[in-house]
Amino acid sequence: MVIVMEEMASEEQIASVIDKLVRLGFDIHRSTGVRHTVLGAVGGRIVDTRDIELLEGVKEVHRISAPYKLASRAFKPDGTKIKIKDVTIGGEEVILMAGPCTIESRDQVMTIAEIAARNGAKILRGGAFKPRTSPYSFQGLGEEGLKYMRQAADRFDMLVISEVMEPSQIPLFIRYVDILQIGARNMQNFNLLREIGRLNKPILLKRGPAATIEETLLAAEYIMSGGNHEVLLCERGIRTFEPYLRNTFDVSAIPVFKKLSHLPVVADPSHATGRRDKVAPVAQAAVAAGADALLIEVHHDPENALCDGAQSLLPEQLEQLAHRLRLIAEAVDRHMASGVSETVSQ
Amino acid sequence: MVIVMEEMASEEQIASVIDKLVRLGFDIHRSTGVRHTVLGAVGGRIVDTRDIELLEGVKEVHRISAPYKLASRAFKPDGTKIKIKDVTIGGEEVILMAGPCTIESRDQVMTIAEIAARNGAKILRGGAFKPRTSPYSFQGLGEEGLKYMRQAADRFDMLVISEVMEPSQIPLFIRYVDILQIGARNMQNFNLLREIGRLNKPILLKRGPAATIEETLLAAEYIMSGGNHEVLLCERGIRTFEPYLRNTFDVSAIPVFKKLSHLPVVADPSHATGRRDKVAPVAQAAVAAGADALLIEVHHDPENALCDGAQSLLPEQLEQLAHRLRLIAEAVDRHMASGVSETVSQ
Amino acid sequence: MVIVMEEMASEEQIASVIDKLVRLGFDIHRSTGVRHTVLGAVGGRIVDTRDIELLEGVKEVHRISAPYKLASRAFKPDGTKIKIKDVTIGGEEVILMAGPCTIESRDQVMTIAEIAARNGAKILRGGAFKPRTSPYSFQGLGEEGLKYMRQAADRFDMLVISEVMEPSQIPLFIRYVDILQIGARNMQNFNLLREIGRLNKPILLKRGPAATIEETLLAAEYIMSGGNHEVLLCERGIRTFEPYLRNTFDVSAIPVFKKLSHLPVVADPSHATGRRDKVAPVAQAAVAAGADALLIEVHHDPENALCDGAQSLLPEQLEQLAHRLRLIAEAVDRHMASGVSETVSQ
Amino acid sequence: MVIVMEEMASEEQIASVIDKLVRLGFDIHRSTGVRHTVLGAVGGRIVDTRDIELLEGVKEVHRISAPYKLASRAFKPDGTKIKIKDVTIGGEEVILMAGPCTIESRDQVMTIAEIAARNGAKILRGGAFKPRTSPYSFQGLGEEGLKYMRQAADRFDMLVISEVMEPSQIPLFIRYVDILQIGARNMQNFNLLREIGRLNKPILLKRGPAATIEETLLAAEYIMSGGNHEVLLCERGIRTFEPYLRNTFDVSAIPVFKKLSHLPVVADPSHATGRRDKVAPVAQAAVAAGADALLIEVHHDPENALCDGAQSLLPEQLEQLAHRLRLIAEAVDRHMASGVSETVSQ
Repeated sequence: MVIVMEEMASEEQIASVIDKLVRLGFDIHRSTGVRHTVLGAVGGRIVDTRDIELLEGVKEVHRISAPYKLASRAFKPDGTKIKIKDVTIGGEEVILMAGPCTIESRDQVMTIAEIAARNGAKILRGGAFKPRTSPYSFQGLGEEGLKYMRQAADRFDMLVISEVMEPSQIPLFIRYVDILQIGARNMQNFNLLREIGRLNKPILLKRGPAATIEETLLAAEYIMSGGNHEVLLCERGIRTFEPYLRNTFDVSAIPVFKKLSHLPVVADPSHATGRRDKVAPVAQAAVAAGADALLIEVHHDPENALCDGAQSLLPEQLEQLAHRLRLIAEAVDRHMASGVSETVSQ
Repeated sequence: MVIVMEEMASEEQIASVIDKLVRLGFDIHRSTGVRHTVLGAVGGRIVDTRDIELLEGVKEVHRISAPYKLASRAFKPDGTKIKIKDVTIGGEEVILMAGPCTIESRDQVMTIAEIAARNGAKILRGGAFKPRTSPYSFQGLGEEGLKYMRQAADRFDMLVISEVMEPSQIPLFIRYVDILQIGARNMQNFNLLREIGRLNKPILLKRGPAATIEETLLAAEYIMSGGNHEVLLCERGIRTFEPYLRNTFDVSAIPVFKKLSHLPVVADPSHATGRRDKVAPVAQAAVAAGADALLIEVHHDPENALCDGAQSLLPEQLEQLAHRLRLIAEAVDRHMASGVSETVSQ
Repeated sequence: MVIVMEEMASEEQIASVIDKLVRLGFDIHRSTGVRHTVLGAVGGRIVDTRDIELLEGVKEVHRISAPYKLASRAFKPDGTKIKIKDVTIGGEEVILMAGPCTIESRDQVMTIAEIAARNGAKILRGGAFKPRTSPYSFQGLGEEGLKYMRQAADRFDMLVISEVMEPSQIPLFIRYVDILQIGARNMQNFNLLREIGRLNKPILLKRGPAATIEETLLAAEYIMSGGNHEVLLCERGIRTFEPYLRNTFDVSAIPVFKKLSHLPVVADPSHATGRRDKVAPVAQAAVAAGADALLIEVHHDPENALCDGAQSLLPEQLEQLAHRLRLIAEAVDRHMASGVSETVSQ
Repeated sequence: MVIVMEEMASEEQIASVIDKLVRLGFDIHRSTGVRHTVLGAVGGRIVDTRDIELLEGVKEVHRISAPYKLASRAFKPDGTKIKIKDVTIGGEEVILMAGPCTIESRDQVMTIAEIAARNGAKILRGGAFKPRTSPYSFQGLGEEGLKYMRQAADRFDMLVISEVMEPSQIPLFIRYVDILQIGARNMQNFNLLREIGRLNKPILLKRGPAATIEETLLAAEYIMSGGNHEVLLCERGIRTFEPYLRNTFDVSAIPVFKKLSHLPVVADPSHATGRRDKVAPVAQAAVAAGADALLIEVHHDPENALCDGAQSLLPEQLEQLAHRLRLIAEAVDRHMASGVSETVSQ
């Protein structure tokens, strides 16, 4: 912590600040400049910097070390690769996660899983619990939905990712899914973060629409401090003054996350844009900017989808996009799997 | 819903949009302008406007009716007064809710409750469960904390408000508190909203730091649709690009909430500013702008507070503030109770 | 400047950073902590901190001293009072500036000036040059408008404030107005700031809708560095994600400006809200939060106003507001002039 | 314009709104729904929708037609190609504009122009007038700078783009440059927009950091309404709550601009990120998302650059980036010129 004193700070005030810091266990280095006295405080317990800021004669307080450690790049300079069965996220391959917004029926998820697999997706996404803004809307199939996803994923040799909403749902989820997703609204639900921090399952953590990059890393740290180090960071758009699309996809967050942290970074262009016709350009941008994986909604009949049909790609759109993504991945010295249509068609 | 067609929309496209809307149960009124054809769609079930927006030839779609009804001013033009025991929120009196950030001990809450009551506070605030950003921080006293609050409130003839974090905590809370607070991070936790919507207890709903006024009213609607109509809206600052204070207190949200909704409006200057020295001016502004109640943190020893000491007023600051608030309340044709020191000192 | 080195920074990297800083004229204080080495750099010329941030091994760079000096509270701890004729801004009196959005005719400005004066306004506001978003809209009366304002102000014993758009207009303005207003869009028009910095006339500087408090103080500094120290800071709303009103009035900016700077603070609720029915609550909030003056639009016939009629108060609304403002001013230990109807009616 | 009346609006109120609209020249279509009466108003002159919104009984007002016409995609569905000498912007080729932040000397611009040309840049960028935040900073070489740019561009067969700050500079600029740049701070400087709207020179219009997509198109419309239809839209980052980088590059604005408008879209990753190490990923993202051109800062000796060295690429970084950009351009069915090193080295 670095404390900058006011120009007019008295010796008494400076002494009083030093005294307080020493009591908190800090070692103090004092630098007396022409205009300001600067105190470097090292060691000591974590303090609310505002408490120091409000002391008489203090001008500004700067934290020195990032408040996250396990999530920081320094902790693991080479980057984390998360290996689940035969899929590795965070390596050279860019991974496609695709599927419907919500699981509607066994047939629906089978149809869509085939489409996803055919286009190279290795992970099947889908919602089983959908607490909606209207209490009258479809709320998801629950466990049945998870079961269908598992079956579809197994059939097409994919992994399963789905969003867990509450600690009480965890036992159910670990039976069916390979990656637990924490939604943007739950990014700072510390009860939930604590529980999943004790699991031995990878977590995809979505950045909240009003969360800074640092706050997202702090939430990852919270999970990791429980022992679960397999966290995927997910950029899905932030809230800004620009009203045209649902959110503003923060493309530069991708390289910033990669610099500050060793964790893999996933992009969700479907939720960021909220509109099918904007998903492809943003997905392309994300891979070009260095994303390790993409989370994309697709539906064979979006007009009749029970949820977010407007942001689901049509099968032919996914195909065209996947083709472009493979070329872009190569342009940035990575690669992306092509589809497995031959296997599937047998 | 009003659908504006593109200038170049063909008759076929227009017919196809009308056809889709009719199938969704809408009555259509068509207006053909010089440049645009406009379709008014009345009745029908709730649709995702994006689904219509993505149809060929459609330029824009506007929802007509607000997506909330029970929370709208039209539903109850005279405004809602919430009466709890002998306290009425939403009437002419401006109500002060004050107390510590978190309950630390029986003595602490007694001391602070007396300070609050002495300055006219009718409701005692305090946190019993504190899921903190660091797993090593103080997590609150839990039920014990609620018990202490109840005792202190009863002693000084106050009501109790405290934040409930999860559905599983509800049974505990209804035993001890008079108003359940939903924190800003839980504003769109629909599981929690559903559960408290079934209660017969007033709810204070905090606006999320990235939530629009409309989204806040939708969350209130969600609670009310469960049968619980006693909802207090609370402005506590929004996230903007301005970094100096923790959040930007949206003072004009107060008159906007009052215009759009019949629900009482509470202001929380402590969380909005995050700094003791900015709480008073913002509290004063809130009453001047029409707030029905204030939620303010106070501590007799903030330097040693276990939580958010930096934003807690000192007792003498609360006293000066309460005095000013009474004058401001009168300036806007309302009133605010003065302290009850005589009663307390007996 | 405080430079925090990465945990893994090598001695060589540290030496190289020190070397660079010494070449830039800084004195270096080095503190070696358990995890980080911290360098305090004092003296030296102004540098772009990003240049240091990009050096190998550097983790973070913090500026120590505020980049503004003349505008800082430290420069003049007692606060600045700007005295123009018999009006003092920044003292105990809260000053009302009122008038039409734009000067439309001699009669119009006379009528409105009388209304303003009758309600205690001491300064007449009005636009003479109105570069509008549409090239077909009314562009203002130009010099004629300034002349009419001067006449009206003289008749009712008021001062004149009006917005100057370009350096070339300055000679004209200094002939007619008492305070030059710099609009929010021009807050960082450094050519214009440089020119008005050479004048001997008070300046009202509007905060840009996307400008931080610090950037606003830097713009004030720019003016003051030219020799003109009579600057009024004006909060007029910032751009946020909340769409209901035109801008979000940042009420806490008022006490923050007062803490960081010695300059008087003006609030403009008319432009912040953009709607007549929200002007009064925000004006009241501004005075309650400590504003030294208000800038308010009023029109006797807003339906037919040539500009921004929707945000102009009706005469009777101004009267009611002025009455409340006087009571609020007193509640915060200040005062506000009542009207001068008797003088005027003679 | 569509006017939605309050549920409780009386017949009298409805009649009064219709009456007002008819007087303003509108044709009215009335739809009476179960809950709301909706009025469609067609024709009529441009009105401030707030004036209608404030009428008794009115709930909401929606504008129907976009307030821009010349800039809208409907005006020119095939898209605009701007051809300057042998360079076409808005066609299949993605154009690279590169150069220093500011022109420092003849040697500097020659050196950098060669680097730019060698990497395929067809347009040389550089600032000649630099009104800086500090009055003591380097203010640019002025006309001399423009001359050097012209010489360098001619030598390497490039075009010249440079920022014009004021109407008075225009005659100078048209003598030396091929494209006039309007900076983000001047996006709504209507005096300047009016003047350049009369020219016969292409304009690059930067989106303001707090400007919506629609406001940017309105500024383009302003220029075009003067007769100059050759406008390039430039995304350069917007201001959000995320503090890590200078601005948040709004990558999805690229496909949105392309959908709403026929004008070519340029991306400026240098100003958006403000840091050299983030320029490449954002540049790559912009091309992947459909940008027609890039504006990139490069310097052979950024440590000693007089301006914004921190965001200037090193020559070898530009080379690597240009290589990747060519591959990405091809991935999205476009192409980008490779360097002309052979020509230059003669």
